[in-house]
Amino acid sequence: MRRTLAAAVREAVRGGRLAPGTRLPSSRRLAAELGLARNTVADAYGDLVAEGWLTARRGSGTLVADRADRADRIDGTGRAGARPIVSRPAAGPSRTPRHDLIPGNPDLSAFPRAAWLAAARRALTTAPDDALGYGDPRGRPELRTALADHLARARGVYVSPEHVLICAGVSHGLRILGRVLAGRGARSVAVESYRLDRQYGLLEAAGLETLPLPLDTHGTDPVPPAGTDAVLLTPAHQFPVGTALRRDRRTAVVDWAGRTGGLVLEDDRDGEFRFGHRSVGALQALAPDRVVYLGTAGQTLAPGLRLAWMALPPALAGEAVAAKGRIDSSEVVSQLTMAEFIASGAYGRHVRAVRRRYRDRRDSLVTALARHAPQVRVLGVAGGLHAVLGLPPGTERPVLESATREGLRVAGLSRYRHERALNGVTDALVVGYGVPTDAQWPQALSALMRILS
Amino acid sequence: MRRTLAAAVREAVRGGRLAPGTRLPSSRRLAAELGLARNTVADAYGDLVAEGWLTARRGSGTLVADRADRADRIDGTGRAGARPIVSRPAAGPSRTPRHDLIPGNPDLSAFPRAAWLAAARRALTTAPDDALGYGDPRGRPELRTALADHLARARGVYVSPEHVLICAGVSHGLRILGRVLAGRGARSVAVESYRLDRQYGLLEAAGLETLPLPLDTHGTDPVPPAGTDAVLLTPAHQFPVGTALRRDRRTAVVDWAGRTGGLVLEDDRDGEFRFGHRSVGALQALAPDRVVYLGTAGQTLAPGLRLAWMALPPALAGEAVAAKGRIDSSEVVSQLTMAEFIASGAYGRHVRAVRRRYRDRRDSLVTALARHAPQVRVLGVAGGLHAVLGLPPGTERPVLESATREGLRVAGLSRYRHERALNGVTDALVVGYGVPTDAQWPQALSALMRILS
Repeated sequence: MRRTLAAAVREAVRGGRLAPGTRLPSSRRLAAELGLARNTVADAYGDLVAEGWLTARRGSGTLVADRADRADRIDGTGRAGARPIVSRPAAGPSRTPRHDLIPGNPDLSAFPRAAWLAAARRALTTAPDDALGYGDPRGRPELRTALADHLARARGVYVSPEHVLICAGVSHGLRILGRVLAGRGARSVAVESYRLDRQYGLLEAAGLETLPLPLDTHGTDPVPPAGTDAVLLTPAHQFPVGTALRRDRRTAVVDWAGRTGGLVLEDDRDGEFRFGHRSVGALQALAPDRVVYLGTAGQTLAPGLRLAWMALPPALAGEAVAAKGRIDSSEVVSQLTMAEFIASGAYGRHVRAVRRRYRDRRDSLVTALARHAPQVRVLGVAGGLHAVLGLPPGTERPVLESATREGLRVAGLSRYRHERALNGVTDALVVGYGVPTDAQWPQALSALMRILS
Repeated sequence: MRRTLAAAVREAVRGGRLAPGTRLPSSRRLAAELGLARNTVADAYGDLVAEGWLTARRGSGTLVADRADRADRIDGTGRAGARPIVSRPAAGPSRTPRHDLIPGNPDLSAFPRAAWLAAARRALTTAPDDALGYGDPRGRPELRTALADHLARARGVYVSPEHVLICAGVSHGLRILGRVLAGRGARSVAVESYRLDRQYGLLEAAGLETLPLPLDTHGTDPVPPAGTDAVLLTPAHQFPVGTALRRDRRTAVVDWAGRTGGLVLEDDRDGEFRFGHRSVGALQALAPDRVVYLGTAGQTLAPGLRLAWMALPPALAGEAVAAKGRIDSSEVVSQLTMAEFIASGAYGRHVRAVRRRYRDRRDSLVTALARHAPQVRVLGVAGGLHAVLGLPPGTERPVLESATREGLRVAGLSRYRHERALNGVTDALVVGYGVPTDAQWPQALSALMRILS
C-alpha cells in the first residue's frame, strides 16, 4: 500500500494534477480517509520527500516540491524557495529526532562551499586532459603529493607520494587492508575493546578474527597476544573513549610490530581535531615500514566527498593497490579539487576554523555539565567531535530512553563495546557535538541538560 | 636501483638542487654515466613523471616540473607553463604509442569543463547541507530524478527515480549484480561470444559461470540455453562487433525472461551514440520487471567522473542497494553537478555535440578506407566510438605488429573472444576513434592507412 500510494502521488505530480506548492492532507487525515494505517501514509510521504517529489517543513506541512520552477533554480539565482529540502516529514518526536548527537559526523553547514568551488575551478582549469580518464588506481598524483606534504606537517606522517593510496573512506581503506592481510595468510587482528562497530565487520568479512585488547585506567594496552597478525588502533584519540595512547604504549606496540613482523593499522580519523597545545603526532612516524596510517576528509570537510587516504609501508603498497583495483577508483574532480584546496592553504585555514568551532562547543558542553549535571564525569574531551559522559551504574538505558523522548539522537557507550571485550568501562553517553549547526547547538545542549539534570 | 634513483631525484627537486625547468640528461646518457641499464633509468623517470616531479615531452626531453610556481598556478591565472603533463617519458615507438585507438574511451579534450564548473556552482550553491553527508546508498535523489527523466526521453527507459541506483561504472554495476544473482542462488549467466573481457571476470568473481551465446550472420542469438539464470547483452550496439540486436531477437529474449523468470542485463554504454536517423531504444522498456538497464557517463563525459547508473526491476532494487552498501557510495558533488547538468539541458547539448564529432570521425575513417584500403570490410559503424575492420584470414596478428611499429595502440578482435565461444567472426582490428583529439585524429588516421594499405 505504501508503494501504491507513493506511485499514485508521483503520477499525479508528474501529470500536473498536483501542482507545485500544493499542500497535501496530513498523514493522519489521509490515513483516515483511505482507511490506512497512519504509518503507511507517513512512510509513503517520506519516500516521496526523499525522492524530491515532495518537501516537508515543520509547521507548514507536506507540499508538492517546486519542480516546475526548475528553469528558475538552474539559472543560478539560488532562490531560497527553490532549495530542495530532503528530510523526513514531521511526525511524533520519537520518530524524528530534533537533534542528531551521534558521534563521528561533522557540521555539514560548515562545509566551505565557496572556497571548494573556487579550488574546483582552478583545478579543473589547469588539469591535463588525461586527468579525466581512469587514471592511476592509487589516485591522482597531484593529490598524493599534496597529502604527503600536508600529513608530514600536520601529523608528522613520513610517506612519499608514491605510497599514498586514495580511497573512499576509512572503512573502504579497512576493506582493502582486510583483503591484503587475508592474502598474506593473516588470521587475526587485535582491536580495541570499544570501537566503531562497522569497521570490525569489514575485517571479519575478509575472514579475519578480531580479538579485543584489554583496557585499564590508562587506556588500551595495545600489545597483542602472541600469534596476532595485526592490530587496529586509534592512537591520537581513542574512539569512542577519547584517551590518547600513552607514550610508553606507543613505543611498545611499534616494538611488537618490529619484533614479530606484525602490522599496525592507525585510524587517525579525528587526529586533526586536538584542542590543547600538546599535539599528538601520528604513530606512523615511529615505524613507517610497519604502520599503515588512515586519514579522511569525512570529518574535516564532508563524508559525501568520499575522500580518504592511506600512507602505506612500501612493501605493502603494491598489494594494497591491487586489492583496491580500478573499479574502486575515486572521482577525479574532487581529487583534483582537494589537491588544490590543500596546496593553496585553504584546507589548513578551514581545519583551524572548524577546530575553533568544535572547541567552543566542547567548552560550552563542559561548562553546562558542571552547572546542570555535576554528577556526570566528562571523558575524552582533549580532541575530536564527541565527548563521553560517564553515568551512574545502571542508568545508561533509562537516560537513552529519555533522550529519545526529548528528540535527541544519541548513542550509549555500550553500543561500541566489542562482544568479547575483556572488561567494561562505565555506563555512559557518547555525545557527538559535530552535527548540529551553530544555530541548533544551544537548543540541543539544553535538551541534553534536561535529560541529565 | 630504480627506486633509489627516483628517491635521489625527488630529494634533489624537493631540496631545490634541481630547479623547475631544468632538463635532465637523457636516460641513455645517465644510464651510461651511472653504469645502469637504460630501462632502469627510464622507469625511474617514468615513476617521477607519473608522480608529477618531472614532465616529459617528445622533442624537448625530461624536465623538472614547474612545482615551485605553485603559488602562481593556484591564483587561477592558469598559465600554460604550469600545466602538469602526466605521461610516460619519450622512448622507442614500441613503448610509447603515439596514438591510442583502443576502443571504449572518449576524447577527454571534449570534456565540457566550463559548463561542468557552472553546473557545479549552481548545484553546490542550492544543495541542502545534508546532501554533503553519507546520504542514500542509491545516490542523490536529484540525480536519480534527472536520470529517470533523461533516460525516458533519450533511451525509452521506463523507471521511477526510486529504482535508479547510482554506481561508479558499468563494471561496478556488474559487480553489484553478480552479488545479487549469486545471493539468489543463480549459477550461470549467458554472455555474447565477443565481449568486453573485464566485465565477465566480475561475474565469474561472484561465483557465476559465463556461457557464450552463438553468433550468426544476423548477430547474437540471445536466447540462453535451458537452466541459465541471466543473460548479459549489448543490444543497441554489440560490443565490439557493432550490430544492433534484431527486433525478433529482442522480443525473443524478453519472452525467455518472462517465461523462465530469468534476468536480462542490458549494457547500454554507448547507446547515446547512434549516428543514423533510426534510433535503437533500450530493450528495458519491453520488460522493466525483467531487465536491468546499465548506462554510464564514462563515454559521454569522462570515465574519471565515476558516474554510472542502473534502472532496476522494482523486485530487485532492495537487494541491489544492499549489495552496493554505503562504502561504495558515489561522491556527492559530482552527483549534484550531473543532476544539474542534465536538468539544465547542458547534458543533451553536450551529447549532441560529441555525437557529431564522432560521426565525423567515423565518416572520415570510412572514406579513407574506401580510398586506401578497399579490401577492408567495415562493420558496426552505425553508432558507438569504434569500428570493426575485417581483415583477410590469418592477417590479424601481422597487422597488429605493424600497428605497434607505427606507434598505434589498437586491439585485435580476437582479444574480445570468449575462450569457449562457439564460433568466430573474422580476423579484424577494433579501432576506437574516441580517444585522439581533433588535432591528432588526421595523423592517427594516416598511420592506420599506412598499415592497412
